[in-house]
Amino acid sequence: MKIGILGLGLIGGCLGLDLGSQGHDILGVSHRESTCKKAIELGCVHQASLDLSLLVSTDIVFICTPIGLIVPQVAQLASYLPKTTILTDVGSVKAPLVAEISPLWSNFIGGHPMAGKTDTGIDFAQRNLFVNRPYVLTPVATTPTRAITVLEEIVRSLGAIIYHCQPEQHDHAVSWISHLPVIVSASLIASCLSETDTTILHLAKNLASSGFQDTSRVGGGNPELGVMMAQYNRDPLLNSLQHYRQNLDEFIQLIEQQQWNTLEEKLKINQQARLDFLTKC
Amino acid sequence: MKIGILGLGLIGGCLGLDLGSQGHDILGVSHRESTCKKAIELGCVHQASLDLSLLVSTDIVFICTPIGLIVPQVAQLASYLPKTTILTDVGSVKAPLVAEISPLWSNFIGGHPMAGKTDTGIDFAQRNLFVNRPYVLTPVATTPTRAITVLEEIVRSLGAIIYHCQPEQHDHAVSWISHLPVIVSASLIASCLSETDTTILHLAKNLASSGFQDTSRVGGGNPELGVMMAQYNRDPLLNSLQHYRQNLDEFIQLIEQQQWNTLEEKLKINQQARLDFLTKC
Repeated sequence: MKIGILGLGLIGGCLGLDLGSQGHDILGVSHRESTCKKAIELGCVHQASLDLSLLVSTDIVFICTPIGLIVPQVAQLASYLPKTTILTDVGSVKAPLVAEISPLWSNFIGGHPMAGKTDTGIDFAQRNLFVNRPYVLTPVATTPTRAITVLEEIVRSLGAIIYHCQPEQHDHAVSWISHLPVIVSASLIASCLSETDTTILHLAKNLASSGFQDTSRVGGGNPELGVMMAQYNRDPLLNSLQHYRQNLDEFIQLIEQQQWNTLEEKLKINQQARLDFLTKC
Repeated sequence: MKIGILGLGLIGGCLGLDLGSQGHDILGVSHRESTCKKAIELGCVHQASLDLSLLVSTDIVFICTPIGLIVPQVAQLASYLPKTTILTDVGSVKAPLVAEISPLWSNFIGGHPMAGKTDTGIDFAQRNLFVNRPYVLTPVATTPTRAITVLEEIVRSLGAIIYHCQPEQHDHAVSWISHLPVIVSASLIASCLSETDTTILHLAKNLASSGFQDTSRVGGGNPELGVMMAQYNRDPLLNSLQHYRQNLDEFIQLIEQQQWNTLEEKLKINQQARLDFLTKC
């Protein structure tokens, strides 16, 4: 198959490596000449160009740009591609994208591979990033069955575990387990900085260990990504944040009122719930 | 030196292993016969007993029991030991303990080794747990210099990095980087459970990945430990929680009001601050 990859970052690069190794013909487009060169050098793509017209004869195109560019890119691609070309994206938010793209391109399926690395960029592309990772697909009622079948087959060939759901269900689910943790964790870092006694702040820094390190990790991550997810998944995220705030207030109240037995009960439920959450079903 | 270890859990066991290997004579006391046997088998102690009187001729005793038992144990020990014996503890809260113990025993120094493992209990005792880890000591104005010198020498021999501070400073510092993260993280788990749409909850569980795993880790930890730290470090923790809540509300407001530039600025400051925090000074 001729597979196009638009946006040659970590995810685009990893897709290219895996799919190229299966014998597909991989065509990449980036907005930077140096990235095009690197993508060919690293074996992520067979051909690369700054020009969208490279993708004109592809069977399927994976759009791997930052979320904010996905809709504009589809609008541009629409004038180059035959109507049979399947389009899919890898953005971490689905409902607003699917709503905007569906009227532009019927052979579009929203996608979200739940895979990544701390290091970003094509330099860190590797084989088998998607193996045993969830890969969400959000076809809608009007999506042609053929497009779903073709994309599913490719995703399955990456070793990923496919989940189907509505775009809105995806966005609510990731608001809990992916976007809420970012704000929770960011607020932790910000609040530590509010300590005005420099001796205590200095001591806190020196004593900070794995507990602080893990809890603050996603809140200290890529700021552009953080803003994107808040911007594109605003309503589900605000809903999650309101629930979070209520739960936080309950914990504060239990500590204020010294209700230690109830606190212990809640922490026991939590301990079990986390194990359940991390055991896939 | 004759070194006593009262409470043979992970920390007590690790102290025994390291100090015993240096040629000290290690005497352990536990409230369980089976733990005494195991401590000898594992080489953590040379002698072990259920009876505090075993410690009568020790030069120094490390009290490694749960926080709630430290003061009562010191009160009991006081009738057995010569006044010259140095007492120290390893509890994660210092001010209330130091305040209660100082009038009972002048040769007492509060201590807190910032080391641990996910697995607890003497079965998981290992050599060199304290190497390059912070070890806080909180002597007060009346603490005899000799006691400080002796304890410092032992702690240094473990390979730990010694920090001196007032008990209150310790408690404020750990409320930021150790106790606040527990409640922040616990509230995350509790709020995810508040999702009432079972399809979304099920999907969230299946999609939960390293971000959720790391941010929820300390909130899904040992419930008894969580209650102890809240109980003994209540005021500093409540202070940290109030600051946290303000910072959380600021983030919520930025998202509600769609102030994306300000949000990005804050996330950028966070990203840098976290790196600073984790670079020891």
